[in-house]
Amino acid sequence: MISELFKIKYPIIQGGMIWCSGWKLASAVSNSGGLGLIGAGSMYPDVLHEHIIKCKKATSKPFGVNVPLLYPQTDEIIDLIIKENIRIVFTSAGNPSKYTGKLKSKGIKVVHVVSNLRFALKAEKSGVDAIVAEGFEAGGHNGFEETTTLVLIPTIKAKVSIPLIAAGGIASGESMYSAMAMGADGVQIGSLFASSHESSAHDNFKNAIIEASDGSTYLTLKKVVPVRLLRNEFFERIQSAILEGKDKDVLTKMLGKGRAKMGMFEGDLKEGELEVGQISATIDEKKTVSQIFSDLILQFNNTKDKMDKIGRI
Amino acid sequence: MISELFKIKYPIIQGGMIWCSGWKLASAVSNSGGLGLIGAGSMYPDVLHEHIIKCKKATSKPFGVNVPLLYPQTDEIIDLIIKENIRIVFTSAGNPSKYTGKLKSKGIKVVHVVSNLRFALKAEKSGVDAIVAEGFEAGGHNGFEETTTLVLIPTIKAKVSIPLIAAGGIASGESMYSAMAMGADGVQIGSLFASSHESSAHDNFKNAIIEASDGSTYLTLKKVVPVRLLRNEFFERIQSAILEGKDKDVLTKMLGKGRAKMGMFEGDLKEGELEVGQISATIDEKKTVSQIFSDLILQFNNTKDKMDKIGRI
Repeated sequence: MISELFKIKYPIIQGGMIWCSGWKLASAVSNSGGLGLIGAGSMYPDVLHEHIIKCKKATSKPFGVNVPLLYPQTDEIIDLIIKENIRIVFTSAGNPSKYTGKLKSKGIKVVHVVSNLRFALKAEKSGVDAIVAEGFEAGGHNGFEETTTLVLIPTIKAKVSIPLIAAGGIASGESMYSAMAMGADGVQIGSLFASSHESSAHDNFKNAIIEASDGSTYLTLKKVVPVRLLRNEFFERIQSAILEGKDKDVLTKMLGKGRAKMGMFEGDLKEGELEVGQISATIDEKKTVSQIFSDLILQFNNTKDKMDKIGRI
Repeated sequence: MISELFKIKYPIIQGGMIWCSGWKLASAVSNSGGLGLIGAGSMYPDVLHEHIIKCKKATSKPFGVNVPLLYPQTDEIIDLIIKENIRIVFTSAGNPSKYTGKLKSKGIKVVHVVSNLRFALKAEKSGVDAIVAEGFEAGGHNGFEETTTLVLIPTIKAKVSIPLIAAGGIASGESMYSAMAMGADGVQIGSLFASSHESSAHDNFKNAIIEASDGSTYLTLKKVVPVRLLRNEFFERIQSAILEGKDKDVLTKMLGKGRAKMGMFEGDLKEGELEVGQISATIDEKKTVSQIFSDLILQFNNTKDKMDKIGRI
């Protein structure tokens, strides 16, 4: 299990989601026995600094920072993380070989998020300590191959020997148990924590996650960067343009800037980008992080009992 | 478990795939302790009749017929099934309320294949005995919502009380164990059986399944009927037309008729439609059905041992 690597109680990692994952969420998850991650993707270095300081005050347990490697200030952010003595860094959306060596030389545990086997092999080669394999059903940015979690985990597990964390489609103890049966050493959970009381997302967005059902999300903008969004007015407009065959430039212009913040942080449900996973269909209630952990653990153990009853075949 | 409903030893159902699932495959699966299904989708009534007769000779175990409800000769096929005293029918791709009553009145067990919650509720209401919930990763025809197996199973399980069979992304005992942990009462396996020695598919197609890797399949033709295909020359041509915004009529014309037979049965890997699931990435060897069963059961039981070691959390 991944618990030993991070020195945490449960093999449950909270996704470092933009606009949701501030110090409140990360510290609540770490205090509950999981690994909380501050999502640096939506933070300037000074904002991240503030969140790190507050998170340290709010928990004595291990926590980490998630850094998407696609922003101009990544160098500054990495230096800040080292200076602040953060022990765990998750990187995503970029080349893991760029920062892994530097971070590892400071004794920092590095985990890279991938969506296919090729990137998993590349991440392992770059020296990371573990991999998050994120399936097609996950919210937000996503891989071009559209490989689902149920397929991605065994595909990567067969070829990679470092620990593997499953992400995408997991919001219950049953699916956590399933992911580990597939071969994952732990799970990363996004949408469920995005909807929690401690998430820094706007309440409108949290309510939209609660109300989402089967078919409410869709992977779109594949000509720009594939992203899974809740269907809203902005989504339908973009989707029509895609079906008409509009090219990358037109779509990029329609997307513009700041829509993720507008949707998830400012609560504009019509015009914002609402990044959330398919599994939001099963999330029906806003909970505290502590309640989420109690439920996950109870469901995991009940699933064990259920499978024990089935026994060997 | 689904085993009691069908009076079979293992909760393993072979998908009734067109051009792959003749009497040889169905009887081999039933003789191995699973439920074999003859795939009527690629058969005229007289051909189906012949396969039923041969299957009865080849096994004394329960087997069934899969009937996609979208062909003009469906009435004839249903009457043939009743006349031949088939005890299990899987229906797909159509309205389950049309034939379920008639079949049930003859004591036939009816199972309907769905890809979303709405169709699952409709199937339950129509009186079927069980549901197959097939995720986005599955080969061949697929749902518009693109819900993956890991999400679809808990979504349906929460609202439907009849037995639930998971399909899509399953080709090992580990994923079988996972699907049952998610809440499935059994599994339906397609691609793995399509690649078996007993499958009636062309050897070229079986070899293509063995060679497929991460990203080799893609869900396409969404403006016509969504279908997951192996990427080949035909696929790339269709995909370019889609990206250019070509409409349904143009795409339907490009598709033409008979491409599934051309690809899967006649072995034209360039111009045929090659319907197979994402999980083909993990299928590396052509096996007999008997070997497939031994491996699935061993893997299932090994997964149980692995999960027992993890224990309660």
